[in-house]
Amino acid sequence: MPDHNLKPQDRVVYFVSDGTGITAETLAHSLLSQFESLEIKEVRVPFIDTAEKAVSLCARIKSAHATTGVRPVVFSTLVNDTISVPLRDSGAMVIDLFQSFIAPLEQEFGTKSTHAVGRSHGAMDKKEYRDRIEAINFTLAHDDGVSDKDLRDADVILIGVSRSGKTPTSLYLAMQFGIKAANYPLIPEDFERDAFPSAILTHRSKVFGLTIDPNRLSEIRHERRPNSTYAKLENCRYEVAAAEKMMLRENVQWLSTTTKSIEEIAASILQAIHIEKRGF
Amino acid sequence: MPDHNLKPQDRVVYFVSDGTGITAETLAHSLLSQFESLEIKEVRVPFIDTAEKAVSLCARIKSAHATTGVRPVVFSTLVNDTISVPLRDSGAMVIDLFQSFIAPLEQEFGTKSTHAVGRSHGAMDKKEYRDRIEAINFTLAHDDGVSDKDLRDADVILIGVSRSGKTPTSLYLAMQFGIKAANYPLIPEDFERDAFPSAILTHRSKVFGLTIDPNRLSEIRHERRPNSTYAKLENCRYEVAAAEKMMLRENVQWLSTTTKSIEEIAASILQAIHIEKRGF
Repeated sequence: MPDHNLKPQDRVVYFVSDGTGITAETLAHSLLSQFESLEIKEVRVPFIDTAEKAVSLCARIKSAHATTGVRPVVFSTLVNDTISVPLRDSGAMVIDLFQSFIAPLEQEFGTKSTHAVGRSHGAMDKKEYRDRIEAINFTLAHDDGVSDKDLRDADVILIGVSRSGKTPTSLYLAMQFGIKAANYPLIPEDFERDAFPSAILTHRSKVFGLTIDPNRLSEIRHERRPNSTYAKLENCRYEVAAAEKMMLRENVQWLSTTTKSIEEIAASILQAIHIEKRGF
Repeated sequence: MPDHNLKPQDRVVYFVSDGTGITAETLAHSLLSQFESLEIKEVRVPFIDTAEKAVSLCARIKSAHATTGVRPVVFSTLVNDTISVPLRDSGAMVIDLFQSFIAPLEQEFGTKSTHAVGRSHGAMDKKEYRDRIEAINFTLAHDDGVSDKDLRDADVILIGVSRSGKTPTSLYLAMQFGIKAANYPLIPEDFERDAFPSAILTHRSKVFGLTIDPNRLSEIRHERRPNSTYAKLENCRYEVAAAEKMMLRENVQWLSTTTKSIEEIAASILQAIHIEKRGF
């Protein structure tokens, strides 16, 4: 497979793995985000699980090197030496997580690693996998509107005005951590009554509030329903102020999602609610 | 905050970051899955962004060390030396991704890193963030049943029998890669006609099929609708065989989800369909 559109001076970065390559990619994104001036061309190369595939990849890397004139960089998670060794002859700068850290960890733990290809990505952990699927299904089934039973079963209950970020956050919590999140939208009736529904208050310890800057909220709502009362800045200001007032009064933990990524919101919620489900 | 329930000989592993800690946790899970015999107690410690928090964490690590009698292990992604340096005095084995790799990368790229705390987690990349949210909303809106316009707008169209894994896969593609996936369930009418809907065939290049072992499918369906015809093994066998026959005939790319994780399914689809959206 040729790498298309490479130009001289392009810096090509490969994410290479015997599994999905997602661990290598996650690490690489973290590190490369510290070099914001660089123009990088990313190539994901998953499932390199035979020496033949490794040799073929080497040829591809060498060809990219020749085209760009710049040494490519490889981020890899390769368990097996018969795959990782050929890569070292590719001429690329190779940053391999397993080669770097497995030996020190073996020494620390006083035990050999299992060197199981693909294992690192958890394919085999059925319990964890089922928990995640169950959490995703729970979240999808309870994205809008929940019964008392749902609130009891939930690990966390997210409250907030419409479009404050509850849906992507709850899906991320389910997908990444296997956590069941129920979303409880605060609606005009709640603001008129100026009180949370009583069902929410009985579960206060696992309730977490999301709020958002009214200007940003108005932008988001205008994208969904242009020129609606729902999206008007004035209405957004009213709803956000009313929701924040109620959360303060009821001593509910909350944060503003305005400038935060889904990952940051999710990590903050885990820290606040003290739930830990995912293990090995 | 005390670490509860620690016992002698417990091996405590901390995921420490100035951001969410998700990169450190992802890497640690990959590495630790190679030591399956170990019993590990995980502690996630996000948002360590001041020297004071680092010092307080050190005390916590030392206390865990004293209780368990075993040296804790720290996986960290710490950009700032004023935070990473105190951690080295904690007595833990510290594996820091930034300390390990930033200097070699600075040399390779011939430029200094920006040392921006929290940057690594992409909070600031509004374009990428919007793409992800847009993809999640697209996927949620088109999880079951799609119009021709939706099919045109989709980056990938997942087809398969009910409960073959389309929903979690499409959400993961949206969340992790910002890819818009439309799900197109194959239903009894399609099998009776023994043909895909014509709308699907006009988009063949971005269609990907999911199949599943009929025994596993029957289990999953029984959990949803116990004792239904829908869940009966015989019916599952019929639907899966009919779907696979159609996918083979129409030369649609497909895989079996039975023993694969969501990550593996998603990575295989990306590789097959050649879509790349997420960048820096």
